[in-house]
Amino acid sequence: MDTIADLTRRIQPLDERAMAAARARQDTLTKPMGSLGRLEELSVLVAGITGRQQPVINHRVIVTMAADHGVTAEGVSAYPREVTPQMVYNFVNGGAGINVLARRANARVVVVDMGVDADFPPGLGIVDRKIARGTNNMAAGPAMTREQAVAAVLAGAEIVEWEIERGLDILGTGDMGIGNTTPSSAMVATFTGADVAGVTGRGTGVDDLQWAHKVEVIERALALNKPDPADPLDVLAKVGGFEIAGIAGAILGAAANRRPVIIDGFISGAAALFATELCPAARDYLIAAHSSVEVGHRTILERMELVPLLNLNLRLGEGTGAALAMPLVDAALAILSGMATFAEAGVSDRDSAV
Amino acid sequence: MDTIADLTRRIQPLDERAMAAARARQDTLTKPMGSLGRLEELSVLVAGITGRQQPVINHRVIVTMAADHGVTAEGVSAYPREVTPQMVYNFVNGGAGINVLARRANARVVVVDMGVDADFPPGLGIVDRKIARGTNNMAAGPAMTREQAVAAVLAGAEIVEWEIERGLDILGTGDMGIGNTTPSSAMVATFTGADVAGVTGRGTGVDDLQWAHKVEVIERALALNKPDPADPLDVLAKVGGFEIAGIAGAILGAAANRRPVIIDGFISGAAALFATELCPAARDYLIAAHSSVEVGHRTILERMELVPLLNLNLRLGEGTGAALAMPLVDAALAILSGMATFAEAGVSDRDSAV
Repeated sequence: MDTIADLTRRIQPLDERAMAAARARQDTLTKPMGSLGRLEELSVLVAGITGRQQPVINHRVIVTMAADHGVTAEGVSAYPREVTPQMVYNFVNGGAGINVLARRANARVVVVDMGVDADFPPGLGIVDRKIARGTNNMAAGPAMTREQAVAAVLAGAEIVEWEIERGLDILGTGDMGIGNTTPSSAMVATFTGADVAGVTGRGTGVDDLQWAHKVEVIERALALNKPDPADPLDVLAKVGGFEIAGIAGAILGAAANRRPVIIDGFISGAAALFATELCPAARDYLIAAHSSVEVGHRTILERMELVPLLNLNLRLGEGTGAALAMPLVDAALAILSGMATFAEAGVSDRDSAV
Repeated sequence: MDTIADLTRRIQPLDERAMAAARARQDTLTKPMGSLGRLEELSVLVAGITGRQQPVINHRVIVTMAADHGVTAEGVSAYPREVTPQMVYNFVNGGAGINVLARRANARVVVVDMGVDADFPPGLGIVDRKIARGTNNMAAGPAMTREQAVAAVLAGAEIVEWEIERGLDILGTGDMGIGNTTPSSAMVATFTGADVAGVTGRGTGVDDLQWAHKVEVIERALALNKPDPADPLDVLAKVGGFEIAGIAGAILGAAANRRPVIIDGFISGAAALFATELCPAARDYLIAAHSSVEVGHRTILERMELVPLLNLNLRLGEGTGAALAMPLVDAALAILSGMATFAEAGVSDRDSAV
């Protein structure tokens, strides 16, 4: 692909015919109509996304994007910055939460260095798309240039297109980046017009005083950079992050290729919000995995009119919520293709009720 | 076992030492403390239930109990009574929702005839614990005798004890019985003191007029039978059902043997409510799978102080919600035993933050 416009132009509406066929089949299955609720809706959605009346998912991928953030210089996180590369090693060694949960979901984890402030040796399976060694401090100027933002988005899309060539049927998104709830809150406040305090949470666990400071840092960054909500790339560049941009690109790449995307928590949500502000048609390709403890996540989901599948009080990121939700999509499709119809099973439908 | 008292006497409190050990291990794993939310709590709960610091689940069983209900003579269901045995055949042929979802959860479905109004040929894998060919019409007298209620509860417990000998590590409960939301609502209204209308839903899908009639039938049954909420077996016998009693027995049998129980929706919930009214200690062995569309389910969960894992607008029963929640328990235990610690992974803990 050449430009972001080339990418978004390929994102088409859902396939209404496949959806109608899936819905019609659901109504012939041996259960009261609609009694599997959101599982039925999910199967219809994936039919619409893929254009297949009975979609099949064989190859599941979680893309976990990592990057560092200049704003950590302001002391916005409970964890030190070196945790970002340490966790990247943990990912490729298979010891992190996302590794455990992706194994249970039968998903492969693709770990991407979008901009970690460390040099990784080759041969570990870390996909190197490093834009820079961390963003600049958004409280002192723009986090990145517009060119860097575009490059990061396109890199995310390219990774997904490469995975699609290898068979990807469904994408889950994930993030790792000490400090990354701070740019995410800044982006959400800009796009939705919400008060910073109302969309800023405790991240990995800051206390009241640190939280107030985090809000103040975000407010300062917004006052200084004046990101323009009508120009999503301006927002991403000025107060975003490289992994956030990469996730947004992955979402757009999946949608352009009619693959469903399970978005994880707050950081993936901020990326999805950017993607849908840039290209509203991308919204229909998204499945919200869960409702995060991070307060701003609710604002994101409401803005995109997405209802999360799980409410497990998660706040880890990495794609863990996406991995937990993936089996529900599998289950929805298994119902659509695997259940007996009333006719096949010789079960009386409700029309035969007295 | 001899009596229900023998059974409930064996239900002991959670193992606090195993819980403390599981909690301590969770806090060493490479994630911010508590960031996997309810998944962490689930792992600690299952440690307390099983008495093992790192519990392992290998053998998953969903017990789906079926029975008919005399109250269907009052026209309370959208589906004809013959659907109960038809669906039992569907279960053993593998075509029902529970079969599809149990396969995805790697669980075995045990189908039990607790009181279906049909004779099943042997050799199909239907466990025959038929108490009678359906209950009596509770709107005209007691649904069953107290002896029948006791026999049904003990039968449910025996089935689970038999499955435990075969290796059961976790139980999911399920139900099938045309008309069974009606006795369930009657039981919930009795135990909680709630208005009948407030705990009566649309079951498989009755309209407004039929719903008002259903409420009136339940109110008539309660006025006629005067079930005593202080005597749970009296409630079960007068306004319950054979599959509800069997599920309650299965719950008590699992709790007596320190096995976790995932309870499905409204009918399983009514059974769990009976079980915990009879033996409050059983409550700690329960995991609420989901929040059903049936309005009375919320009342049940509030009474038992259980928070459901999923909110998928389900109202099918059969154990489908339990099967969907089972992978979340697996995931919780996989996190506890499979994630790297900070020390193992060489990741800085938050104490090292600036």
